[in-house]
Amino acid sequence: MQIRRAQPSDARAIAEIIVPTFREGSSYTVDPDISEADALAYWLSPDKETFVAEADGMILGTYFMRPNQPGGGRHVCNCGYITRAGATGSGIGRAMCVHSLAHARSRGYRAMQFNFVVSSNQSAVKLWQDCGFAVAGRLPEAFHHPALGYVDALVMFRSLERSAGRD
Amino acid sequence: MQIRRAQPSDARAIAEIIVPTFREGSSYTVDPDISEADALAYWLSPDKETFVAEADGMILGTYFMRPNQPGGGRHVCNCGYITRAGATGSGIGRAMCVHSLAHARSRGYRAMQFNFVVSSNQSAVKLWQDCGFAVAGRLPEAFHHPALGYVDALVMFRSLERSAGRD
Repeated sequence: MQIRRAQPSDARAIAEIIVPTFREGSSYTVDPDISEADALAYWLSPDKETFVAEADGMILGTYFMRPNQPGGGRHVCNCGYITRAGATGSGIGRAMCVHSLAHARSRGYRAMQFNFVVSSNQSAVKLWQDCGFAVAGRLPEAFHHPALGYVDALVMFRSLERSAGRD
Repeated sequence: MQIRRAQPSDARAIAEIIVPTFREGSSYTVDPDISEADALAYWLSPDKETFVAEADGMILGTYFMRPNQPGGGRHVCNCGYITRAGATGSGIGRAMCVHSLAHARSRGYRAMQFNFVVSSNQSAVKLWQDCGFAVAGRLPEAFHHPALGYVDALVMFRSLERSAGRD
């Protein structure tokens, strides 16, 4: 599997991955009714670097990286990752996260933060913990899950200083 | 003191309040070099409701409210407050926060979240705690303070359910 920068010609494959996830509405705080064009505009916005994970010519996942805050917070990055439906559980998310940690260091970021990990998304929480992230905060009932109702969201954080790493 | 919705004619006074705060760079994650036009575009963007605190015809503070996240997170609001330099410490921030809590309830929000309270801004941290906010998370060295270097940022949160309130 190769992880590389997204190209304009990847837009169709990226849309196939991200739009169903947004529609399903259980993991991202994006309007489930977002249009495909707006979803792509969000995922590929100029403030982001966007990557794809490709195997045998098929795009199986995508992630973005951006500064989590401007100004005095710009040394902390934020990422979002989505694996293609049907390809989850096969290590693509983990590979993208490992790739992003290395890329973030190469960019000079000092830490990475996930602002809103839905607590009921247990496989994601475990994966991020495996990748060295700690729960920095818990937001009570901050997410309205389409099936579960109000559930907590987690703020997850990890330093990218060498001494703190374990990836 | 009256707290009312910002009008287009308030732009000059709002800029006088917000731009020096952004320039000073110790409390907001905004590029300190932001132009006045961009600062106003940020503070008055269409996703926000913006208010001003006025006494004797002079605008002494301003705050905004917006959904903190779209989609499944839109029942939690986010606010930002700035008091005019020279008018701090006189209860304007507190009055704006109390106003915002009532307005948020009237809008149907279930909770209010501050994503990034600079930990060295102790008067703000104390004020939000006085207004019922708890520290939901601590982001290690997430803010680069112009004088203090890297300092922690806090995620602060409070429910707006009647049973949880103490304002």
